[in-house]
Amino acid sequence: MSTEETVKKDIYYMQRALDEAKQAYKEGEIPIGAIVVCKNKIIARAHNLTETLHDVTAHAEMQAITIAANELGGKYLEDCTLYVTVEPCIMCAGALGWSQIKRVVFGCLDEKRGYHEYAPKALHPKANVIGGVLDSECKALMQRFFKERR
Amino acid sequence: MSTEETVKKDIYYMQRALDEAKQAYKEGEIPIGAIVVCKNKIIARAHNLTETLHDVTAHAEMQAITIAANELGGKYLEDCTLYVTVEPCIMCAGALGWSQIKRVVFGCLDEKRGYHEYAPKALHPKANVIGGVLDSECKALMQRFFKERR
Repeated sequence: MSTEETVKKDIYYMQRALDEAKQAYKEGEIPIGAIVVCKNKIIARAHNLTETLHDVTAHAEMQAITIAANELGGKYLEDCTLYVTVEPCIMCAGALGWSQIKRVVFGCLDEKRGYHEYAPKALHPKANVIGGVLDSECKALMQRFFKERR
Repeated sequence: MSTEETVKKDIYYMQRALDEAKQAYKEGEIPIGAIVVCKNKIIARAHNLTETLHDVTAHAEMQAITIAANELGGKYLEDCTLYVTVEPCIMCAGALGWSQIKRVVFGCLDEKRGYHEYAPKALHPKANVIGGVLDSECKALMQRFFKERR
């Protein structure tokens, strides 16, 4: 696949993750969405549900990993890409590491809780990680949410 | 509470976590067990179910956090202690951090995957962490499991 095609695909799929983040926003949840893509097919869609479920583990990525594994019938996601609107936290990066996922694409950085700062080796050593895709859209949704709650 | 009482309690509760780990062993799962104690009451018991559920996120601690939060009807576990037979991994330590749990007691170290090495700041800064409780029992169960699978 050419770089141009990859960029177009990444933007397309990040928009789908953003759709999930917008759904979280509507539900009063911190607006983060994630999808898992395997062989050009979306096999999992999820958004943050920590408030609704009263469960700190209910991050978008955690749910997406569980849904994707169920869909594939196995626990490893080697041939998959996870798209998430915000940089994963320590917990989610640790889970992505266990899943052996090949590629992670995220939107905006999370300066306070992102894994790059606190657990830089969490992901599988061969995983390919890209950040900044639709950065401003992902960030704007987060800023809007927190501004309204101040 | 005196130091002696605390030690006795920690040993008692770690034995309960070991009961869970032994259950995992019987089910062919990596034998790790966890419990959550709140005001001298066990409010969650769980063991590793990654194989059974085909889900890398189904670690004992993750399930114990979810069960405990359900039991308390809120997502934070400030007044709780988690006992787990093996040092938490990055993912579980990240989840424990989000849960704001006050105290974590673990059995044996996990030299390869433990959070101390890869995400030392994962837990809440005020969390009190103790390791090595029933170290040899916890370690022996793990070694037995892996030896039988070699």
